[in-house]
Amino acid sequence: MVQAAVMGYGVVGSGVVEVLMEHKDSIARRTKEEIGIKYILDIRDFPDSPFRDKFTKSFEDIINDDEVKVVAEVMGGVNPAYEFTKRCLENGKSVVTSNKELVATKGAELLKIAKEHNVNYLFEASVGGGIPIIRPLSQCLAANEVIEIAGILNGTTNFILTKMIRENMSFDDALAMAQKLGYAERNPAADVEGHDAGRKISILASLAYGKHVYPQYVHTQGITKISLEDVSYAASWGGVIKLIGQVKRLEDDTLDITVEPMLIEKTSQLAGVDDVFNGILVRGDSTGDVVFYGKGAGKLPTASAVVADIMDCVKHLKRRKYLDWADGDESIVKPYEQTEYPVYIRVESALDKKQVKQKVKELFNNAHTISRTDSAENEYAFVTDSMVVADQQKAAAALEESGIKVLSKIRIADL
Amino acid sequence: MVQAAVMGYGVVGSGVVEVLMEHKDSIARRTKEEIGIKYILDIRDFPDSPFRDKFTKSFEDIINDDEVKVVAEVMGGVNPAYEFTKRCLENGKSVVTSNKELVATKGAELLKIAKEHNVNYLFEASVGGGIPIIRPLSQCLAANEVIEIAGILNGTTNFILTKMIRENMSFDDALAMAQKLGYAERNPAADVEGHDAGRKISILASLAYGKHVYPQYVHTQGITKISLEDVSYAASWGGVIKLIGQVKRLEDDTLDITVEPMLIEKTSQLAGVDDVFNGILVRGDSTGDVVFYGKGAGKLPTASAVVADIMDCVKHLKRRKYLDWADGDESIVKPYEQTEYPVYIRVESALDKKQVKQKVKELFNNAHTISRTDSAENEYAFVTDSMVVADQQKAAAALEESGIKVLSKIRIADL
Repeated sequence: MVQAAVMGYGVVGSGVVEVLMEHKDSIARRTKEEIGIKYILDIRDFPDSPFRDKFTKSFEDIINDDEVKVVAEVMGGVNPAYEFTKRCLENGKSVVTSNKELVATKGAELLKIAKEHNVNYLFEASVGGGIPIIRPLSQCLAANEVIEIAGILNGTTNFILTKMIRENMSFDDALAMAQKLGYAERNPAADVEGHDAGRKISILASLAYGKHVYPQYVHTQGITKISLEDVSYAASWGGVIKLIGQVKRLEDDTLDITVEPMLIEKTSQLAGVDDVFNGILVRGDSTGDVVFYGKGAGKLPTASAVVADIMDCVKHLKRRKYLDWADGDESIVKPYEQTEYPVYIRVESALDKKQVKQKVKELFNNAHTISRTDSAENEYAFVTDSMVVADQQKAAAALEESGIKVLSKIRIADL
Repeated sequence: MVQAAVMGYGVVGSGVVEVLMEHKDSIARRTKEEIGIKYILDIRDFPDSPFRDKFTKSFEDIINDDEVKVVAEVMGGVNPAYEFTKRCLENGKSVVTSNKELVATKGAELLKIAKEHNVNYLFEASVGGGIPIIRPLSQCLAANEVIEIAGILNGTTNFILTKMIRENMSFDDALAMAQKLGYAERNPAADVEGHDAGRKISILASLAYGKHVYPQYVHTQGITKISLEDVSYAASWGGVIKLIGQVKRLEDDTLDITVEPMLIEKTSQLAGVDDVFNGILVRGDSTGDVVFYGKGAGKLPTASAVVADIMDCVKHLKRRKYLDWADGDESIVKPYEQTEYPVYIRVESALDKKQVKQKVKELFNNAHTISRTDSAENEYAFVTDSMVVADQQKAAAALEESGIKVLSKIRIADL
């Protein structure tokens, strides 16, 4: 019997306990060891829980108990999760987590501590919920150079965009519905501003390229400015707008890493990833495109990924899994203004139609007009060829100066 | 430096050598060991190969060389691959393979021998080519009960069906095109009759349910009888016909396992898996649906999966990976005639329209007429509710007796 502790009894934590209990026998059969839960750490009281005798409010109970070999940190947030994780690893306890914020901000350091103490720090559940992605990326794709990773990494924003695309619902209405259904927090900023997806792509990038890419280096833009007009133009162009976290290695060995709404063709494997689902595309030089798809969040999917990591720790007690990346700094990331891609732009102007089109074509690389039914008067939209972001910005400023208002500018991605 | 040998220098074997050589440095960095190729076994001569000094025609060179720790068996077929693999494992060498036929027919025995000799037998490349599926299934989904696995497992037949669906090409023309493009063998039976997919679902089932499900227990039906008429009815019903390998555990703990053409709804995640791509859906009790998608075959995707397994063996020399299943017999599989599912049937009859419909509705469970444009005279199609296969067969025989010819009968799947 190997003893584990669960820190945090929220949605994921209670799911972890549930999965460990309900699958007790099959888990024991698979790991050749029974896994017991010795402690559940939470500041709240759960007097009616069948596990009430396992609850503790003191982290010291866990850290001082040598019987506890594996700790599931499912508290979320950086503090006190960071300190607790660090102390567990330093005390020879393996830690598994779903805490993307902590992995994204402290991953390199915690992996180093784990290595020094010959224990494991695993975080399959931090990206993609129940979708296996961390392990396939680190193991199965090991014989590949990863050319690019692009994913729909946040279920809440994907739900909102799906409602906008499929039901012509406004952003505000779709957000309200997501909140009502429990998919979005009352303060939805972390989701709709792209921070959650930013943490996830920062973890995937660190793993794929071997150096920590901190979230503050990731250009992050949310979906709050996406309008139904853009959705409609996207459709007539033959695509959809999705919030994509993307990283690719450029020729000078820096990374183009970003989270932003992107216009992708309907035939892309990511275009059909709808509602609260996540989809992650990994483009390898040998494998070609491999796509992973499933529920990116939710109690049981996430909990089952945490439990799979616990089982892996139990099978590898005192043997390190090869999950590792070095520390990184800003120099590994290409400044966003220097990256380049084609764009969709939508403008508004009282100027003569011909004049507007001519001006846009003059300033943007090979701009083509696209149209939609029921377009507003004085509204025009274009798609361009690839342009450096700084040049896009200059061109947009020049448009504004000529009396042409830029209403939206969305990256076009070839996925 | 760890020495490896490659047995078979065909498409996959030459790819394995290429990937090992071209990614030498990054592989060494990831495994903390350089991997050398000491032998390449092939009966043919390759006098112009840059690796000509590594070629041998004698398996004894490999088996007698204690320096060789990992052997990639990429010869295909059961003989002599079976004997060679067995002897390697017995001599303390780990073996990795893309040989689905061998794993499907001898997996339990070879895994047992590997276990007894504390070495590894890995076969990520045997299913799904470069798509990671064996490892995610055995590890990441470990904390799940697998309810069902369903996959498009054969690229050749999927290419043919895609041509039929998208371009209204006949089966024969699409097969000829697949052969011309090198997707299909000159003797295409293993693909179009479903045997290749049958071996793959037998491997996935064995892994998921812990007992060897031999291919001969898998009901296997190919796509040779699918007509453009069926494709057209499928479209008007809102679906597509795909060759699906499927396994699910029934309430009495037996398995419903089959390879056959199935009618699935267009909204299914598998419906959009087109051309030579593979897609595998794993339905877990905690994770829900997780889908893996990518190129299911081809030199480099398959080779990169073989190399990832070689790397894993190198990292786990003398430490067993937890890949394991027991021997199994026919009793774990539900006889096909006793399984049940809804069907699509297409019939032809000179009888009065009303009479035909009445007869079908009488014999089939809740049969509903479906129609298509340009349907032939005297042609009718129906979809039914779930029925036991033996009852379907009886009903079909009764139709024939009443002068109604059954032209096709295709399973409807809820995927």
